[in-house]
Amino acid sequence: MSKKPVCLIIGAGAGIGGNVGKKFAKEGYHTVLVRRSDEAGLNKLVADISAAGDSAVGRLLNAAQEDAIENLIVDIEQNEGPIEVVVFNLGAQFGDRTLEETTYKLFELGWRMTSFALFRVAKTLAPIMEARGGGKILVTSATSAMRGNAGQHAHAAAIGGRRLLCQTLNAELSVKGIHICHIYIDAMIEAPDTLGRLVGEEIYEKLLAEKANGKDEMVIPEKVADTYYHIAHQHRSAWTSEVDIRPFSEQPWWNN
Amino acid sequence: MSKKPVCLIIGAGAGIGGNVGKKFAKEGYHTVLVRRSDEAGLNKLVADISAAGDSAVGRLLNAAQEDAIENLIVDIEQNEGPIEVVVFNLGAQFGDRTLEETTYKLFELGWRMTSFALFRVAKTLAPIMEARGGGKILVTSATSAMRGNAGQHAHAAAIGGRRLLCQTLNAELSVKGIHICHIYIDAMIEAPDTLGRLVGEEIYEKLLAEKANGKDEMVIPEKVADTYYHIAHQHRSAWTSEVDIRPFSEQPWWNN
Amino acid sequence: MSKKPVCLIIGAGAGIGGNVGKKFAKEGYHTVLVRRSDEAGLNKLVADISAAGDSAVGRLLNAAQEDAIENLIVDIEQNEGPIEVVVFNLGAQFGDRTLEETTYKLFELGWRMTSFALFRVAKTLAPIMEARGGGKILVTSATSAMRGNAGQHAHAAAIGGRRLLCQTLNAELSVKGIHICHIYIDAMIEAPDTLGRLVGEEIYEKLLAEKANGKDEMVIPEKVADTYYHIAHQHRSAWTSEVDIRPFSEQPWWNN
Amino acid sequence: MSKKPVCLIIGAGAGIGGNVGKKFAKEGYHTVLVRRSDEAGLNKLVADISAAGDSAVGRLLNAAQEDAIENLIVDIEQNEGPIEVVVFNLGAQFGDRTLEETTYKLFELGWRMTSFALFRVAKTLAPIMEARGGGKILVTSATSAMRGNAGQHAHAAAIGGRRLLCQTLNAELSVKGIHICHIYIDAMIEAPDTLGRLVGEEIYEKLLAEKANGKDEMVIPEKVADTYYHIAHQHRSAWTSEVDIRPFSEQPWWNN
Repeated sequence: MSKKPVCLIIGAGAGIGGNVGKKFAKEGYHTVLVRRSDEAGLNKLVADISAAGDSAVGRLLNAAQEDAIENLIVDIEQNEGPIEVVVFNLGAQFGDRTLEETTYKLFELGWRMTSFALFRVAKTLAPIMEARGGGKILVTSATSAMRGNAGQHAHAAAIGGRRLLCQTLNAELSVKGIHICHIYIDAMIEAPDTLGRLVGEEIYEKLLAEKANGKDEMVIPEKVADTYYHIAHQHRSAWTSEVDIRPFSEQPWWNN
Repeated sequence: MSKKPVCLIIGAGAGIGGNVGKKFAKEGYHTVLVRRSDEAGLNKLVADISAAGDSAVGRLLNAAQEDAIENLIVDIEQNEGPIEVVVFNLGAQFGDRTLEETTYKLFELGWRMTSFALFRVAKTLAPIMEARGGGKILVTSATSAMRGNAGQHAHAAAIGGRRLLCQTLNAELSVKGIHICHIYIDAMIEAPDTLGRLVGEEIYEKLLAEKANGKDEMVIPEKVADTYYHIAHQHRSAWTSEVDIRPFSEQPWWNN
Repeated sequence: MSKKPVCLIIGAGAGIGGNVGKKFAKEGYHTVLVRRSDEAGLNKLVADISAAGDSAVGRLLNAAQEDAIENLIVDIEQNEGPIEVVVFNLGAQFGDRTLEETTYKLFELGWRMTSFALFRVAKTLAPIMEARGGGKILVTSATSAMRGNAGQHAHAAAIGGRRLLCQTLNAELSVKGIHICHIYIDAMIEAPDTLGRLVGEEIYEKLLAEKANGKDEMVIPEKVADTYYHIAHQHRSAWTSEVDIRPFSEQPWWNN
Repeated sequence: MSKKPVCLIIGAGAGIGGNVGKKFAKEGYHTVLVRRSDEAGLNKLVADISAAGDSAVGRLLNAAQEDAIENLIVDIEQNEGPIEVVVFNLGAQFGDRTLEETTYKLFELGWRMTSFALFRVAKTLAPIMEARGGGKILVTSATSAMRGNAGQHAHAAAIGGRRLLCQTLNAELSVKGIHICHIYIDAMIEAPDTLGRLVGEEIYEKLLAEKANGKDEMVIPEKVADTYYHIAHQHRSAWTSEVDIRPFSEQPWWNN
């Protein structure tokens, strides 16, 4: 059992999840990093945090599996310590697909990995947090939670629903001390695991050359992590329930 | 095969669905009325429309069943005629339930009956409509599609996602001549099958006494039907993608 | 005094205003058409309506002038008949201008012609309508009421405020039988007086060639008029407070 | 000329404005505190900051006056130092008033103090900031910027327009390094100058007894100040353009 407060990151790759984990670890949390695959990547992340003198452990988890999320939470509560912050960082961005290209299976998977998985986290963790007097649930989201663009059938339906789930959860749980915040990233993120995989290595390298490397025209996960940390530490008289994030160089989704 | 254009109503009870069916039948459509149960009620609806000299048939359908929606659409296209208008009228209002009271099963059912079922309709019907140069998909929705209230976990997540699905469908299909409109009813509806069942007969009778019977303080399905019909017949240079509906006496969801 | 119900159109040019006027006249209203200038155009509009056997009169009015709107309403009530429907059709689309190009004067003018002018109409007419048990206020609006794009400083601030004014008016007046609807046109309109003047004749002709003349890719005012008429005649148990309008060929403002 | 970066607070009373000023001063800014009246209160605020070893000056200003804002900015730039952050904290909450109780004068004043005053700040300061490569404009706002409630005619029209002005400014200026954020407080604030004046001393004392003093059920300005400071210091790859703020105990405006 860690003596530090526990921050659980569900979806801890090399982008937002991993960097939010690093930030919380650096600030004194024991961070539990969870991802589906790439054990080597996960071990490296844990090693990096440990090397900095901070505290982290890693877990592999298939969140779509029955009881997986539920067992994980119970296990962490028993073996790592009370979860004070959970960062829900699972997404379902499959790239643009026409209606024809979007299968029933994909449509369901999107819902299962985002909306339903968050519901499972909340069902399991909220009563525990409530009994302790509070906690934080930070949900990473994307533009498709705000409006449905062409090709985003599976993604928008899934995370658009999840956004409203954050609101129903907040409506019930905030008064019990549980702070829920929907943080939506409205731009491309420097993240080899997600954007990199989505667009392919070549395009990703080109994007980095054009927009990253000091230009700051893609979202830098390490920098967003500061906002996650800030929100998790807002005084309870002044909580935020939704924030948008984009680089200075990008127009918001509502502009053309 | 009917010589009239076909209007398919998925979810045709005694409220919005049945009354929109009557309106379209009266205006010259052959109306296919589909509902899950209450064969007697369905037969009465068909008989009422026929007695008025209009055209309707009824079908019982469990929309949650695999292939049920898909087979229905194929069947109607072959045996009743080309579907020009589909009114998607399935909802998932289970009443207010706390997080504890909302089971995984219910959460999934909500998604399956609303978001996923509409996706299945679109996957099946949109290519057929597109090949014919167009069609209309009208989706009955509710306030929980706009924001998540306490107790609405299953409902809001399901239909909030479905609202954005309407947007992704519109983004891809409107240019192909398919008009999609999200019609959300932001108040109680005079509907014994839905509101009546939800609140129980006694409360429903009390509500009718307070708000109906000439007071017009609940949404009268027969009157909303006019707006469905209007939207389905807007000229393609002037389509509407979303409308709200409530009685004069009700404050919108955004007011307190 | 006309025996017909009166429909007052404030901002009656050759686009939305004039065509909504024609529609209401055709359906049995005595239409009072008001515009700032172009007496010849106004006379032609009145003559066209009269030639069709319908009823209309025209008035020139500088809405920005003190007491002009107030006196107009009193005058119409006394000399033409009780105003049942007012269509508020004044806009303030000055074209895209940078912050530098947007003067204080322009910024104020935008507010004065849209938000403040509607407030003056409501202050003057709502008590009269209320005393009669009801009325209709239809407000023509535009995409800039929903979100602020680059170059739209004066326009968006003015009509974004006006949209919320529609909501405050609705919150107070709907229960008194006054139906307020914010109708926003989310695309270019075939209107020589407004779009034509804004982009210049040459570009306007090019736009018509590309998008109009049977292509229906610009909003056709005559067709939108049907939706104005429909909304003004919704049953009070099923009122709509906001609709969007665009051609099938256009993506909504929330899509990219 | 201060060697510290300058933070200008327009609307610096004992609530949000004053406390944001204190926070920035504490963090190393030279804070220029501006308010319309109550010179004693202003002097006390400056004295408090100075007593803590931080840097502040005060100015009285009638923002509605012609050239007042413009001259102030020029003066500060010349005599205090380059303005790095401006906190625009003027509001126009006049309390609930019916349409009848809302005069033309009040309606105009609301617009003048909020939407137009921010436009004047932006017109004057944005070119200066742009020439320096950037700056921050933080706008304090309220629920009425999101939707129009009964009795809020003047307020909602004014600040609803101002919200969209923030968006048009952002659309033009973010790429020039100017970060604009619309921070809306969706609850009552512990602020004797504003809420206290609005509801009267007796009710205000009652509210404090019920909701403040350790209960944290009203927004505590000192706590919100942390979020203002955080936003002003977000890395430019991860800017936020809008945040909501409310106590854990309050339901958001979109809930009933």
